[in-house]
This record gives sequence, structure tokens and C-alpha cells, in this order.
Amino acid sequence: MKEIRGNVIVGQSGGPTAVINSSLVGVYKTAKDRGAKIVYGMLHGIQGLLENRVVDLSEHIKSDLDIELLKRTPSSYLGSCRYKLPEIHEDQEIYRKIFKILEDMEIEYFFYIGGNDSMDTIKKLSDYSILNGSRIRFMGVPKTIDNDLAATDHTPGYGSAAKYIGSITKEVIRDGLVYDQQNVTLIEIMGRNAGWLTGAAALAKCEDCEGPDMIFLPEIAFDIEEFMKKVAELHKRKKSVVAAISEGIRVEDGRYVCELTDNVDYVDAFGHRQLTGAARYLAGRIARETGCKTRAIEFSSLQRCASHMVSRVDITEAYQVGGAAVKAAFEGETGKMVILKRISDDPYICVTDIYDVHKIANIEKKVPREWINEAGDYVTEEFISYIRPLIQAELTPIMADGLPRHLYCKDHTK
Amino acid sequence: MKEIRGNVIVGQSGGPTAVINSSLVGVYKTAKDRGAKIVYGMLHGIQGLLENRVVDLSEHIKSDLDIELLKRTPSSYLGSCRYKLPEIHEDQEIYRKIFKILEDMEIEYFFYIGGNDSMDTIKKLSDYSILNGSRIRFMGVPKTIDNDLAATDHTPGYGSAAKYIGSITKEVIRDGLVYDQQNVTLIEIMGRNAGWLTGAAALAKCEDCEGPDMIFLPEIAFDIEEFMKKVAELHKRKKSVVAAISEGIRVEDGRYVCELTDNVDYVDAFGHRQLTGAARYLAGRIARETGCKTRAIEFSSLQRCASHMVSRVDITEAYQVGGAAVKAAFEGETGKMVILKRISDDPYICVTDIYDVHKIANIEKKVPREWINEAGDYVTEEFISYIRPLIQAELTPIMADGLPRHLYCKDHTK
Repeated sequence: MKEIRGNVIVGQSGGPTAVINSSLVGVYKTAKDRGAKIVYGMLHGIQGLLENRVVDLSEHIKSDLDIELLKRTPSSYLGSCRYKLPEIHEDQEIYRKIFKILEDMEIEYFFYIGGNDSMDTIKKLSDYSILNGSRIRFMGVPKTIDNDLAATDHTPGYGSAAKYIGSITKEVIRDGLVYDQQNVTLIEIMGRNAGWLTGAAALAKCEDCEGPDMIFLPEIAFDIEEFMKKVAELHKRKKSVVAAISEGIRVEDGRYVCELTDNVDYVDAFGHRQLTGAARYLAGRIARETGCKTRAIEFSSLQRCASHMVSRVDITEAYQVGGAAVKAAFEGETGKMVILKRISDDPYICVTDIYDVHKIANIEKKVPREWINEAGDYVTEEFISYIRPLIQAELTPIMADGLPRHLYCKDHTK
Repeated sequence: MKEIRGNVIVGQSGGPTAVINSSLVGVYKTAKDRGAKIVYGMLHGIQGLLENRVVDLSEHIKSDLDIELLKRTPSSYLGSCRYKLPEIHEDQEIYRKIFKILEDMEIEYFFYIGGNDSMDTIKKLSDYSILNGSRIRFMGVPKTIDNDLAATDHTPGYGSAAKYIGSITKEVIRDGLVYDQQNVTLIEIMGRNAGWLTGAAALAKCEDCEGPDMIFLPEIAFDIEEFMKKVAELHKRKKSVVAAISEGIRVEDGRYVCELTDNVDYVDAFGHRQLTGAARYLAGRIARETGCKTRAIEFSSLQRCASHMVSRVDITEAYQVGGAAVKAAFEGETGKMVILKRISDDPYICVTDIYDVHKIANIEKKVPREWINEAGDYVTEEFISYIRPLIQAELTPIMADGLPRHLYCKDHTK
């Protein structure tokens, strides 16, 4: 007979991924299976919690089909936030408020699915909980397409984003071969400071595709003149040149390439330029300076929401980290994040473990220098061997009337 | 016993689609099955033919698996061109050259897979053939994501592009709901003069998705002030506003919206601005004038090469029009294009027929005014009923090591 547990609450925070809802299902189902009375969901994370915006997840997930749909639903089902808690000594009021809300709901276990910033939230809440003798347990569930979380081999969400990037890079490369004339395609990929996603473009290199010709990660300073020379060199032996670049590439003096433009069209509400446009800028320069046909393709938000093309390994692991967080919390853990530990590359074997969230929060894991080639214009075999297992196999969308079907949350869309 | 036929040649021309190679397979396989001796492929269409760049397709397609891979291979397998033949009375030399090449190869049947411009090629070659007593027969096989060919109910390539646009529009809409703050997403979709592709964004509106809030086709003059007002109105009742716009929208005086920008970063080799940037321009205006968070997403070339998400109806019809062209040519037809005739919407029944290419070449079919609502900011139910059958069912990619596998043509990539 399963033990009766107290209530559980789960939230999603930070940027979404294509499989973040698989972790939500992992938390929900494991908690329910292990005796949780009510599993609440915060709408828009901690920010929504502070406004008492919570739902009973069993009113949302009513069947096995709902579970399958939710796993395949892109973007944070419950909504997300970018809300940073103050340090405990700075403002205890907000902590008192959060704990009052949680206690009123008889919450015993708190799960937060997110990245660096979200782990900061778990760290602070679990610290406060221990300092104040609360019995509520706080566990982090990792997710981010950026793959920049410390301690874990990789993050759920990354494998699917990598699979998507690899797949469409292949398609775009083929598309560049159509006409019998010189051309340059610049693919702009997400990742402000870490090149994990951009490096995934190398996956396109396989038996039936030459792959991109160059890959530039934000970890290495970008030399525009050198780049122009390389394009000219490549054009001596092939017509269609494809370069994958991170949105976050910077020149030697630290300026983002996308900031070099005089284009002031596209600024955000605060007059800040958005971190896009590096590919467009370089495409413009090549066209003007060499007369070559160019195009800039931004993979844009699809990298984090293309649930129609997910990795089965990834979506399964996303579920598992959710389940493992529940298991650990129910066993008494708090202030930890679930991590993935790779036991073997081939055959790929990966297990979950837990890790002190203090050693994870606010740390950004970059691509090691030795996984980038010496010239700084491609990734190494080690990098590719690292990603390859993470993109394996598929979880087909459930199609209805010609389109992928999702589970629709009306509550947070108003 | 099957009749022995002469040689066949097939080429691909104009912009690619995700299913254009299914038509190539349709021509190849039907011609072979019906007794063609050799089926040649022109590399880069008529332009390659003029340089004697041809391949024997049986050296490329060696197995049933190759056929399945080729069907799923995006972008023109043989390469394409944008080559317009002169009028026959202007320059007979080039025609003599083409026919000399064809006769040397003992070609009896010539198939060209393409859009408006390609049908112009078929028209001129068949005219010349008849005028000069050649027995070579010329048939057009329709393709274009733009769906702007006359006489045919729709064009192969359109259904898959529409399915892709509908699917990722759903994903992008969900992605816009993540944060609890006002935002505007502008989706830029291909189609310079005809709004068939942009209208397909309406498919996203279904049980589990509200769909885009506004859709602007190039058929209707775009009023920027009016648009800004509508965004403000929508924001009174919802946080996340999504508008799908054609890359080709123009203001009342005829200027493209993407030309209104002072951004001169991104010009092509001839100093011409490329026809992209309308979404970016509008996103910038909204951000500056209202302070609202905005983003611009260009669906870009993926619309024509996303073979990982094709419509089974479309890819099957693409094959059928190829086969029907061969059948008709073998029966003696020339100077015709295969068309699709819709017999019924529900159940969807569609058959092939042939049509005089003179009445198709160089004509651009636009979205009828009555399929756009009165305000000019959405498509009607009729439009959606028209597309819906074309996006049905899937043809799953053949996956190898985590990525879609294609058939790779080394010959034209140098």
C-alpha cells in the first residue's frame, strides 16, 4: 500500500524547451503514483505563486492521452517567469509571504523546473526553509536548451534542440545547393555565451550531407576579416558555403557582432538592441564586399519550441529527471537538483543522481576549449560524440487534422 | 508485354519544394515502368542541359529504398535554375542547340518540373518542336510552394509548406504565451505577390490553439497605422498578440513594408534589398512606439525545404503529377501541364488532368478577394476549407542516427 503524502507544487521557470512539459508530467505522475494528495501547478512560476495563481493539475491531466499530449506540448504548459528572489538577508518579507502561501496550501514538496536562475530560487527557498525550521522540501529539475548547467552531463531540452538544429541545418544546406551559382548561407543559432546549440549544427555532417563549412561559437573571439578570407577560400573549391554562427559571437574588443550594425530598426521596449542580427550583418558585408549572393537564416524561437521534432532520448530523460526529483524529495532530500550522469557513450547509458544546488545556481557551463578546433571555426569529434546519443530516436507528434496536437492550458493565456 | 519507348529526360526548375523530388520519382518510375530505355536527369535544368550536364537516373536510383529516400529529400535533387528562354523568333540558335543535344541523346520525351517560368520553357520548346516537325514531346509537371499556378486547383509543394507553416505557427503561438507580459510576435511568411502561404497560418486556429490574431496577405494594401491600432485593441483583452504577415505586404503607395526601413545592412550582390524584413520593421515600430516586447520570426527557407514535416496528400500528389505527365506524353500529348482537379472537398477527391501550357505560363494566381475577410486582416472559412485537405497525414522521414536521411546527389554540388 502506498504511503499517503502531503501536497506537492510544481512550477516552470525561465525559457521553455520542447520537452519541458515531459518533466512536468514526470513530477506529476511520480508524485501521484507515490501517494501525493494534491499536485498543484504554479502559473508563471514563483511570480504567479505570489499572486496565488495555482491550479490543481489533476483537473488538467485527466487521462493517459492527456499525459501523452502534454509530453509533446511545446513551451511551458504552466507559463513561466524570470523572477529572481532577493537574498534572504535583504528582504525576508517575500519569503514569509511565499511560505505562508505554501503552508496554507499544505505543501510539503516544491519542485521547480528550470535553468541557472531557477536553481537560484531553489537554493534560496531551501536555505530559508532550513533556517526557519520548515519541513517543506525544495528540489530543482533541470531544463534548458542552452545546456549550460553545471554538474549535470547535459540538460533535458538540449538533445531535442540539437536534433532540430541538426535536422534543419541539413535541409538548409541542401537548399543552398539548388542553383548553380556561388552563395553563402549564414545560420544564426541561439546561445548568448555558450556554444552548445551552435555546435549541434555539426551533426548535419554525415554520409548524405557535407555539413556546415564553418561553425563559430561565442567562446572564441570572432575575427571578421579572417572569416571573409575563409569564405573566399572555400569558394575556390565549392559553390555553396554555409556557416553556423552563434547569436552571441563577439569581436576581439568584446562587442557583439550583431551590435556592429547601424540598423536601429529593431530594438526592444527599453531601446536595447535584441541579440539577433549577427548573421544578417555578416550576410550584408559579404554581399557588399564580394558581390556574392547571401542569405541569413535565424533559427529563432523554433529551437526551443519545435516539439514536432524531439529526441526520444531527451523527452524520456526529461520525464526521468522529474520523477527522480520527486523520489528524492519524498526520501527527504532538499536543496538539490537532479543531474544526469553519463555512464557510457556507446552504448549510451545515463542515470540520474542529485547534486547540491548551491554548486549549480548561477554558474554557466561553456563548451570546453578542447572541444573546439584550433582555428576556432569548428567543433571536434569529441563534441559530436558527446551530442550524438542525445538526439537519438523520435517521439512522433500526435497528429489531429493534419497538425500536431497539444494540451491546451487556458488558465494562463489571458 | 510493355512497349519499348525512347529516352526520357527530366529537369527541375525554379525554387524548390519539400516534395519536388517526389515528382521526379513519379516521372522516373512511371517512365521506367512503361518502357523508357534511359531516363536522363538534367543537372540545373535547361541551363545545365545546354552544357551537357546530364545524368542517367538509374545510376542514382538503385533500389526501392533510394526511391523512398528521394521522395523525402528536400530541395531539387538535380539542382535547379532560373533560366528564361528567349522568344523563338528572337534567337533560334539556342533552340537549335537544345534540340541538337536532345536528338543526340535520342530523347523522345522531355519533362520539366516547375512553376510559371518553367511552364514558359515548356511552352516555347513544344512550340518550337511543332514548328520544326520534331517528334520530341514536352510536358510540364507543376510544383511551387507559392500555389500561384493557373488552371490547377493547387500545386504540389503547397500542401506541405502549408502544413509546416500551420504546425510551427502553433508552436510559436504557444511560445508567446510563456511569460506573463504583453508581447507581440510577427511571423513573416513567403509569397511576394500571392498570399497562399501566409493564409496557411490560419490552420493553427484549432481546438488547442487560438491561432494568429491577424493575417495580412500581399493582395490587400497594408495600413500601418490601422495595424498599430489593432494591436493596441487586442492587447486590451489578451497579452500575447500574434500576426502573420506576407514578406510582400505593401503600403497604399505600393512600397513594400520591408523597404520602409533605413536599414541598409542586408542587400544582395546587386545592391538590391532582399524582400525580407517586414516583420522586423513592424516589430521595431511597435517596440519603439508602445514599449511592448516584440519579436520578429522569419520562417525563411524552411518553408520550401522542411521535408521532415510533409503532407502525405501532397507528397502523393507530387508523385502522381509526375506519373500523369509521363502517361500523357507517352500517349502523344505535348505542350501541356498536368493539373490537379478537385472533385470534392469532403471526402477529399482530386484527380489529374492535362491543360494547355499556353494558358498557364507566366500567369500568377492570387488569393480571391472573397477568401479574405472584409477588414483584410484574416482569411475566410472558404480559404481554410480549401487548404485543410491538402495538409492531411504524414510521410515520416527515414531517420538514420537521429536525423532525417536524404538521397545525396554529388554530381551537382561542386
